Amino acid sequence: MTDYTPPLREIRFALDTLAGLPEIAALPGYEEATPDLTESILEEAARIASGVLAPLNRAGDLDGAKLTGEGVRTTPGWREAWATLIEGGWNALPYPAEFGGMALPGVLNLAVQEMWQTANMAFALCPMLTQGAANAIALYGSDDQKARFLPRMVTGEWTGTMNLTEPLAGSDLAAVRTRAVPEGGAYRITGQKIFITYGDHDLTENIVHLVLARLPDAPAGVKGISLFIVPKVLPDGAPNDVSCVSLEHKLGIHGSPTAVLAFGEKGGALGELVGEPNRGLEYMFSMMNHARLNVGLQGLAIAERSYQQARAYARGRQQGRPVGWQGGPVGIVEHADVRRMLMSMKARIEAMRGLLYRVAADSDVAHRHPDPATRAEAQRRVDLLTPVAKGWCTETGIEIASLGVQVHGGMGYIEETGAAQHWRDARITTIYEGTTAIQANALVGRGVLRDEGAAAGALIAEIAAEGRALAGGPLAAEGAALAEAADTAARAVVALLAASEEEPRRAFAAAVPFLTMLGTLAGAQMLLRAAAAALAETGRGDADPWWSARVGLARFYAAHVLPRVGAELAATREGAGAVFAFDEELL
Amino acid sequence: MTDYTPPLREIRFALDTLAGLPEIAALPGYEEATPDLTESILEEAARIASGVLAPLNRAGDLDGAKLTGEGVRTTPGWREAWATLIEGGWNALPYPAEFGGMALPGVLNLAVQEMWQTANMAFALCPMLTQGAANAIALYGSDDQKARFLPRMVTGEWTGTMNLTEPLAGSDLAAVRTRAVPEGGAYRITGQKIFITYGDHDLTENIVHLVLARLPDAPAGVKGISLFIVPKVLPDGAPNDVSCVSLEHKLGIHGSPTAVLAFGEKGGALGELVGEPNRGLEYMFSMMNHARLNVGLQGLAIAERSYQQARAYARGRQQGRPVGWQGGPVGIVEHADVRRMLMSMKARIEAMRGLLYRVAADSDVAHRHPDPATRAEAQRRVDLLTPVAKGWCTETGIEIASLGVQVHGGMGYIEETGAAQHWRDARITTIYEGTTAIQANALVGRGVLRDEGAAAGALIAEIAAEGRALAGGPLAAEGAALAEAADTAARAVVALLAASEEEPRRAFAAAVPFLTMLGTLAGAQMLLRAAAAALAETGRGDADPWWSARVGLARFYAAHVLPRVGAELAATREGAGAVFAFDEELL
Repeated sequence: MTDYTPPLREIRFALDTLAGLPEIAALPGYEEATPDLTESILEEAARIASGVLAPLNRAGDLDGAKLTGEGVRTTPGWREAWATLIEGGWNALPYPAEFGGMALPGVLNLAVQEMWQTANMAFALCPMLTQGAANAIALYGSDDQKARFLPRMVTGEWTGTMNLTEPLAGSDLAAVRTRAVPEGGAYRITGQKIFITYGDHDLTENIVHLVLARLPDAPAGVKGISLFIVPKVLPDGAPNDVSCVSLEHKLGIHGSPTAVLAFGEKGGALGELVGEPNRGLEYMFSMMNHARLNVGLQGLAIAERSYQQARAYARGRQQGRPVGWQGGPVGIVEHADVRRMLMSMKARIEAMRGLLYRVAADSDVAHRHPDPATRAEAQRRVDLLTPVAKGWCTETGIEIASLGVQVHGGMGYIEETGAAQHWRDARITTIYEGTTAIQANALVGRGVLRDEGAAAGALIAEIAAEGRALAGGPLAAEGAALAEAADTAARAVVALLAASEEEPRRAFAAAVPFLTMLGTLAGAQMLLRAAAAALAETGRGDADPWWSARVGLARFYAAHVLPRVGAELAATREGAGAVFAFDEELL
Repeated sequence: MTDYTPPLREIRFALDTLAGLPEIAALPGYEEATPDLTESILEEAARIASGVLAPLNRAGDLDGAKLTGEGVRTTPGWREAWATLIEGGWNALPYPAEFGGMALPGVLNLAVQEMWQTANMAFALCPMLTQGAANAIALYGSDDQKARFLPRMVTGEWTGTMNLTEPLAGSDLAAVRTRAVPEGGAYRITGQKIFITYGDHDLTENIVHLVLARLPDAPAGVKGISLFIVPKVLPDGAPNDVSCVSLEHKLGIHGSPTAVLAFGEKGGALGELVGEPNRGLEYMFSMMNHARLNVGLQGLAIAERSYQQARAYARGRQQGRPVGWQGGPVGIVEHADVRRMLMSMKARIEAMRGLLYRVAADSDVAHRHPDPATRAEAQRRVDLLTPVAKGWCTETGIEIASLGVQVHGGMGYIEETGAAQHWRDARITTIYEGTTAIQANALVGRGVLRDEGAAAGALIAEIAAEGRALAGGPLAAEGAALAEAADTAARAVVALLAASEEEPRRAFAAAVPFLTMLGTLAGAQMLLRAAAAALAETGRGDADPWWSARVGLARFYAAHVLPRVGAELAATREGAGAVFAFDEELL
């Protein structure tokens, strides 16, 4: 187990140069985000992430959350860590001042969340979900609900949860059976919810559960689901009728309690309706963009943590003599394949960071830009890229955590080393908040088929143009590769539209390969932007080798990662039919 | 946790059609391998694998091997399972009759080992390593040593281990420090060995340790390492001076004890030299081809186990309504991406089986063919493809076990489901018996650079010719894709040779990408051979849809997996230099 040192230079570069924080901070309502405040927020967050949260990560794995007679007990140290976040007002970053917030851009909040997630993913799920629940109330709650719930969620005195899944309703929320019966202006909620992250804990006195349930007269399916606020503790201090029945025994993130919650075993938990009846799924989906981007961020985070640990090991471990090595004893970092693995990790980490921050910045534009057309365009980009960021970054995060194990050789398989924990922790990220297939279906269905490829085509054209604009310069070869990959993705869009015409399921059989293409491509775009910016700095006379490393990472990615775009083209075309080549009984 | 049903039809097809068992059985010395005996061996092995070994797999994970005051205690049931293998004479398959063996081809033994490994990988390591140690004694031991050790290792009354690794000598065996001092015709062994699989256990009364150690006057480095037999129990029944100091706490294969062994804490363990002094590493390397092929087999095995479990879940779990589905309630197997994942698993499983069995068959030819030139050619093929089979099948096995988790959605992350165990178990396979990088370095160094691409070129030309031979027929498109991929691999060989001329480490920076290419390509060759054979059967009037499924799998692989060959070309060419784009301190 090694320390976590937040890569503040890389984070600041991604914020300023790739996500355009200076432009975001100039939008009305984000005036607080001055360069100085940004700097001090990032530095202080780094101190907490490395000094408070990261040292608890291993303890969370070994001595995870436990269900006791007095409810769920979190890992020792968790309560104090949460208190640190409350004291610093860290949950308040993105909220309006009227609820005690700091009114800072979402992209800056994302950078802080990155540090929490990298330091301690199991812990950081709690602030992440609390912000997600607070966002839902801020968007859809009544003024009265906002006044009663938001201030304490913004401080972190109360945490929040999302209660969607039931034993028979996972990816398919149409099957939700939890019931809500009106009673004197409120509702009695009855049913069982599973896989509820931080569904119970001892960090705060109250938990604000957001629960999907059906009203008595609700239509069947997804159009009959409403959203309710169900606090763990009622306003008069009495416990509500919700209890944690059990915690799951999971492969990883042991520090994060995953609860089975029983609502209404004693007559019905008291809840209140959010917004209008039967619009719960719509509300949840809009929250979900936040949650999905943040799970994508976990892909980056666990990759960064694995990478830092592998890099430290590779520098310290001596074994054998690298081919062509002339010097004295040296770490395995000089072995060609160890270096290749570390480069592959680092290049993809920076690509993911660029993509994630970009989506968050677009989301800020969509919320705050004065021009409606600019807002709408940004929102289309967010809608298109959120499933890509979630799906691609989490799949990539698992691959990178696996490389983190591999760099350690035999020691990687020993639990005490800690590399395996990251890999186990990472494995949930492609599953929760919608599996990779669910993301890919959203991308193809809502992102490509619905507008006949307009939004995807615009992004692809932008990337192709950026690649071609590099012609004649030092990044000409990489730019050409980027443009060619963009053209390949454009062909895939045509193939998807044709497949959908022919037989709808064929388009969805190609969905994950297409998501992989688009993520790989969008990541390359970010790395080439970074490389071009770095060359501009060196051109202005800054000889810091950190800039040349940006160029090296882009070159590495262009040769080792970007060709994946071409490899997935056949899967999206000829391969879609091959998925159904024979009946399932012959499998 | 689901049952394991050995895929006997697929195994028999791979044996007969892809590995050419009938021709192997016609070689001198393999006369026992009649079709009837083969059939009854496979059927009985399947019964033991599914009925005895598979039901213990979960117990091995939950209640793994433990170090007690009386040595290592294996999982309850393990002893009885081992006794079943002894009773059936299952360890004896590949050995000559003079040591109690059945003199059957190695490829048939591999098919049986596949079933053990798929049923229970943690358990099956014990017979695998016992056969590896017995092979070493059979090849390099004196007649006296063979007479004293082999019969009881062949029955399974004694097991065997390989003692290579030390804390400072992992991938680099030059650093071995364990010492052997001559004493009255024998040797006193002193030192510590780590990561010793089944280094202690309660399955048998004795364990035959094969130990790498240095004689007092030995030269430094790899040329000063000798091989010793060090039994746990001495001929007079007294315990030898070797003890299990601790067991590792591992990510997976909990049922397999991974021991730290201390030799000589009471003055020196008694050992005897195998073969000549200072040739230990050479002997170990020849054993290692056996071990590496068998670890490659574990990649296939864990993939098959994951696949069977995911398939069963996908058939039973109902969730949502597949796009375009007209019928009633149906399992998620009809969802496009679930089907894609299962097809991807199945197609690669059959590709791996074809490749592994082919290498084992070539090894049989190399041992038994009457023509020296044919033997030599077969051995060149074995040397070339063994690291590919090990590296590619284990990397693929982990990917497939990960898909096995993914098919289960949220349930995949819950340990009780069992899908996660396969993924954890699989993770060791790319590490032990030489990491993927070690395999790739062997492939590039000994398989490509040493003979200037001759053996690799011959294989690639064979594949290209097979692809082109399919022109004009129903597999023309897939054949063309195969031939194009072979041409791509040929370009990679040229690039490796050029890179090595320019700067040796560049060739090794491209080693893993090249291994991935060659494995992907060699797997495609096997699937297209299978598809062509299937079409021949249907052409002869056999309307069994099982044959058409072989064609469907080849088509799927050609579109979804084979393009990976093209994607790795840039990594082996431009990408080799990019690995060293900047100094490690900038990572």
